[in-house]
Amino acid sequence: MEEKKSETEIEPPAKRFHTDHQASQLASYNGTPLELKCINTIRALAADMVQKANSGHPGAPMGCAPMAHLLWSAASAGGAGRNHSAASPQWWNRDRFVLSNGHACALQYVMLHLSGYEDCSMDQLKAFRQVGSKTPGHPENFLTKGVEVCTGPLGQGISNAVGMAIAAKHLGANFNTPDFPDIISSKTYVICGDGCLQEGISGEACSLAGHLGLGDLIVLYDDNHITIDGSTEISFTEDVNKRYEAYGWQVITVDDVANGLDDLRAAIDAAKTTTDKPTLIKVRTTIGYGSPNKQGKASSHGAPLGAGEVETVKSRLYGMDPTKSFFIDEDVAAYYKQQAVEGEIARAVWEEKFANYKEAHPEKAAELQRRFNHELTEGVFDDLPTFVFGRDKADSTRKFSEMCLNAVAPKMPELMGGSADLTDSNYTAIKGAVSFQKATPEGSIIHFGVREHAMSAICNGMFSYGGMRPFCATFLQFAGYAMGAIRLSALAKHGVIYIMTHDSIGLGEDGPTHQPVEMLESLRAMPNINVVRPADLNEMAAAYQIALNGVQTPTVICCSRAGVSALEHSSRDKAMKGGYIIRPEEGEGAPDLVLLATGSEVGRCVDAAKALSEHSIRTRVVSMPCQEVFLEQSESYRRSVLPGNVPTLSVEAGAEHGWHRWSHAQIGMTRFGMSGPLEQLFVKFGFDAENVASKGKELVEFYKNLGGNVPDLNARPSFDSFKGPVH
Amino acid sequence: MEEKKSETEIEPPAKRFHTDHQASQLASYNGTPLELKCINTIRALAADMVQKANSGHPGAPMGCAPMAHLLWSAASAGGAGRNHSAASPQWWNRDRFVLSNGHACALQYVMLHLSGYEDCSMDQLKAFRQVGSKTPGHPENFLTKGVEVCTGPLGQGISNAVGMAIAAKHLGANFNTPDFPDIISSKTYVICGDGCLQEGISGEACSLAGHLGLGDLIVLYDDNHITIDGSTEISFTEDVNKRYEAYGWQVITVDDVANGLDDLRAAIDAAKTTTDKPTLIKVRTTIGYGSPNKQGKASSHGAPLGAGEVETVKSRLYGMDPTKSFFIDEDVAAYYKQQAVEGEIARAVWEEKFANYKEAHPEKAAELQRRFNHELTEGVFDDLPTFVFGRDKADSTRKFSEMCLNAVAPKMPELMGGSADLTDSNYTAIKGAVSFQKATPEGSIIHFGVREHAMSAICNGMFSYGGMRPFCATFLQFAGYAMGAIRLSALAKHGVIYIMTHDSIGLGEDGPTHQPVEMLESLRAMPNINVVRPADLNEMAAAYQIALNGVQTPTVICCSRAGVSALEHSSRDKAMKGGYIIRPEEGEGAPDLVLLATGSEVGRCVDAAKALSEHSIRTRVVSMPCQEVFLEQSESYRRSVLPGNVPTLSVEAGAEHGWHRWSHAQIGMTRFGMSGPLEQLFVKFGFDAENVASKGKELVEFYKNLGGNVPDLNARPSFDSFKGPVH
Repeated sequence: MEEKKSETEIEPPAKRFHTDHQASQLASYNGTPLELKCINTIRALAADMVQKANSGHPGAPMGCAPMAHLLWSAASAGGAGRNHSAASPQWWNRDRFVLSNGHACALQYVMLHLSGYEDCSMDQLKAFRQVGSKTPGHPENFLTKGVEVCTGPLGQGISNAVGMAIAAKHLGANFNTPDFPDIISSKTYVICGDGCLQEGISGEACSLAGHLGLGDLIVLYDDNHITIDGSTEISFTEDVNKRYEAYGWQVITVDDVANGLDDLRAAIDAAKTTTDKPTLIKVRTTIGYGSPNKQGKASSHGAPLGAGEVETVKSRLYGMDPTKSFFIDEDVAAYYKQQAVEGEIARAVWEEKFANYKEAHPEKAAELQRRFNHELTEGVFDDLPTFVFGRDKADSTRKFSEMCLNAVAPKMPELMGGSADLTDSNYTAIKGAVSFQKATPEGSIIHFGVREHAMSAICNGMFSYGGMRPFCATFLQFAGYAMGAIRLSALAKHGVIYIMTHDSIGLGEDGPTHQPVEMLESLRAMPNINVVRPADLNEMAAAYQIALNGVQTPTVICCSRAGVSALEHSSRDKAMKGGYIIRPEEGEGAPDLVLLATGSEVGRCVDAAKALSEHSIRTRVVSMPCQEVFLEQSESYRRSVLPGNVPTLSVEAGAEHGWHRWSHAQIGMTRFGMSGPLEQLFVKFGFDAENVASKGKELVEFYKNLGGNVPDLNARPSFDSFKGPVH
Repeated sequence: MEEKKSETEIEPPAKRFHTDHQASQLASYNGTPLELKCINTIRALAADMVQKANSGHPGAPMGCAPMAHLLWSAASAGGAGRNHSAASPQWWNRDRFVLSNGHACALQYVMLHLSGYEDCSMDQLKAFRQVGSKTPGHPENFLTKGVEVCTGPLGQGISNAVGMAIAAKHLGANFNTPDFPDIISSKTYVICGDGCLQEGISGEACSLAGHLGLGDLIVLYDDNHITIDGSTEISFTEDVNKRYEAYGWQVITVDDVANGLDDLRAAIDAAKTTTDKPTLIKVRTTIGYGSPNKQGKASSHGAPLGAGEVETVKSRLYGMDPTKSFFIDEDVAAYYKQQAVEGEIARAVWEEKFANYKEAHPEKAAELQRRFNHELTEGVFDDLPTFVFGRDKADSTRKFSEMCLNAVAPKMPELMGGSADLTDSNYTAIKGAVSFQKATPEGSIIHFGVREHAMSAICNGMFSYGGMRPFCATFLQFAGYAMGAIRLSALAKHGVIYIMTHDSIGLGEDGPTHQPVEMLESLRAMPNINVVRPADLNEMAAAYQIALNGVQTPTVICCSRAGVSALEHSSRDKAMKGGYIIRPEEGEGAPDLVLLATGSEVGRCVDAAKALSEHSIRTRVVSMPCQEVFLEQSESYRRSVLPGNVPTLSVEAGAEHGWHRWSHAQIGMTRFGMSGPLEQLFVKFGFDAENVASKGKELVEFYKNLGGNVPDLNARPSFDSFKGPVH
């Protein structure tokens, strides 16, 4: 979260071979010389990477190197014995590691390299922060195997980790058996800094983690007393330990890791044996450890140390040759290779176990396999309901969402989630489903509490764990609370399903604080996310189909609070194209007018079209539940729906902002809403059929007066400048 | 945050005059009969309001009525002795009250009514939640005098209150004198529920409040054990008291307020005498108190109780006649009238004091007056720097922002704020300014810590307090963390200044987690907010002028991390129009092409235009630092800048999403960015001058091939359906 200031640094002259410092570091070190050399190697490599990139964060890796050493060391070597596998980075039962202070990622890449992960070759370490490398400036799960989630936006990683621990506990409860009690038994380890703990999202997530008693979650807090602005004394003087105890966590303090690992080792052991609550280990560290001019200072945080300083650092660290860069001595390489071997053995043991499990419990094994492959169950969409005009009663689209959720849930046990304390408003209850609680980890309904941001981040973590399709819910307006995490669903390709109800001024009396105006457009501006706003039950069924198919793309399903009109020509299949003609114009030839709408406004447009046809204005109504999916259709299909050169009026009870792409004129919100009964609001803001018809007529006349010269919205080239992959 | 479910409720038969219950309520009540009758009147009125509106939240007002009674009672009556004035609701030194659980607003309106506030007449109580009333579904400061901020989105109000307490402490430190030690000496009282305390934003704000030792902040926590989804046992079992102690707060528990106020009274007294730390008073309450079928249940939270139940409630409460609605007995009315009189006396005393202060310290008094009037100082813009092409060196626009901030700050002492721990990246340091800390409350730089959401909410609170122009800063990407509060700046008309740096992929190596793509568009979709993205120093000066002039409109100033080109024809005056021709086309007549850009892309477009003129494509470049301000200009001015029927290519290193309004084709981001040196990224994503020129040429040829038929983007009617006030 910082940047280089190297241009302003004064580089001290390098003093080569500070044998005195080396000796004193070793003398005060309470451990083996090799261990110290290993840790120093991590420090030096991280400093080298940042120096070569001329950009990045050396301080945290140097301070956290002892933690990383233990986390990447086998139990037999006195390490954490974390199960992971360079040969099979996606091994289901690996113990997850999340670097929540993602700016320290040089540390993670170094450890992945030392452990033999292919994506972090020495060449990649040298290509740190360069275009096209697998070692970007913050960890990106979709680029680098061994990285679980995108971290760097502070507080996200630790909250993702809560989701991972939830997924592990839930899957273990459902798939472990008396004869195979540990098929899913992974732990989740986190390193985080004070920044992560200052962010509100981590407070939300960790309060829930304490409530749920997630004993397999172990957080190492890099307590270096330094923030970017200086000492933590200027802004962060709370008693963190006490706060985490208040959340119901076990809290352990380790006063020093620079001079020996015994205390941290004991703390991790205590954390591993505590099964009923998560553990926070507060580890006192020194940022930039080893840098004589910068250690313990903010200046070591976000800028290269400087070539001279890096050399000085190495000369002061036991076992480091200051003349060598990107150097790993044989004994160090051999040490980590051996640790990695133990990880591979653990995986092999597990795989044999799983083979036996497969024989003993073939259905469970196959189900796990399906779920980790993110395959949908056969016929999962078969029970999605159909709305038959004339037969069925119209309702709110949130009600339709509930019907669809309940139609797919029985066939999708991996669908796990819930609402941020609005279950009966979001209509996200699933019939017969059990609440996920300390005593009932098999349950699939999460009561997230009033914690929208953590809810979204937890869903990201659950998705990243594998075997899960998380969903979550709140009012659409409060997507604004969760935007930091929703964005990471999109970036990190987590197919989370967001059910966002009360999607416009149609929320009514709660008023403008709760009525979204800009939210639909805010979300549509984001890459790799489907924003679906269905107009009725058939379109809602399509929304669920789009959402569940979108394994690498999150979906936001926007639902009305109030009832919508019964639509004669709605279609699930057509809605799957993102946009379609829901009411054809009368007669032959191009229509006189196109009304383009989404969600609860579609029915009003159909009514308006009927009125307009009485004025001999042949009006087509297009329903566009999902712009993103519509854009994926062929140009000819898109033109067949939206001719472009026919006067087009878009109608959405949200900001007009992005609709100029699709329409010549807009009826939308140009201000905030107000408190009152929704029908009065719809009239007040012009979304009633009468106003739509009147404005439609006006639009047709506008162009008639211009001699029929309608600007062709389709006559515009697209210059997508970058033709590479979506990520 | 909930809604009516009245249709599903079974209404029990009303039992009139439950004299036995009445008697027992009085018997167990440890206070005066009148006091109990007052509290019951509040309960009944709130229940009536929700019932009449057939929408709203009766439970919290009924549970919190005892707290409200004390907070609106004078010290002489054993109340909190809160200073406020119905006759002068904006009295500077009033003790602020924030109903953070805004859904309980019936309570606030009732209290304002009983205290004689004009905006909450009996007619307004009866118009609760109706279109055009001053009693909307959640409190709105711009509608109702006596309401300080918009609350309802949970966690915001309590965080606003932290800002109010900061403002009071800071103003007191700067304006009180030995002879007048309490000109600014207000306290800030909050009622909040568990929802507010679950939200991360409140954790951020309260941690900072503890750090800063805000002794004049007193929070009453309505601990009713109920959330919308049921008991707090399902999601919120942390030890709240311990958490607040960890933040450095004084914490007091009150076990009961239904049967007497002595404990709460003592707690408030203790809070008022504690000056070095804020106080949380956890008050055990019963939601829906008095409702035999719904008290203590989630069903009393967000739905009318039902007419029968309301009648039953009244019959069970001492002093209530169940046959009467909206009834205030004479003794009750007289009681609150008397309390209000004491408030007016307190104000009169203060006003006399202020008159004397004015004589003794005329400059200070005038300055306070100016600041509370939100008047700018004379000549505040005079020292804004000017960029002279050929003379001055180009730099990053964040550097230019620093220059402008430092140019206005000496003349604007009310400018108070800082960064979310990115001071040296956001360049928000003000020369010579002192940090606002416990020991230095006169300081104007706030070290917010890594707390973007609370930072924004605190700024809202500071603005609402009066006398302050708050600013705050982070990376533009992390506006996503703060969106819930930024939106309330816009809705509540708080002229907060957001300085958001690192505004595109130009951030470089930190990668896509830190590179905003959608953020500019997300913000532009929001009503009542200026999004300014200056291209150089002259435009930055305009940005500060727009921001400071926007007393009722927040402004987001978007700044580049990296250097921008020196621009020959940039102009502060022209930039004040939101958009202008920064490079005219050659020769006479309409140009062949318009390049439209913002910020760091403007210089690249100028370079592209020069290259195109060599191909005889007469190219105009338009810089549009602020769309919102441009839209306020006359149509003729807008057409003179953007003809509409000339091929127009927009270039912004952000989402293309909203640019279709302005341009025929776009160069923008259609995916997330990547980690790498910024110049390589600009080329990779097509923002280099060469690609801009090439695409510009292509666009001209595209329309040539269509026979010169360029769709006229200005030939579109505007249907702003609602012609009322902006709010």
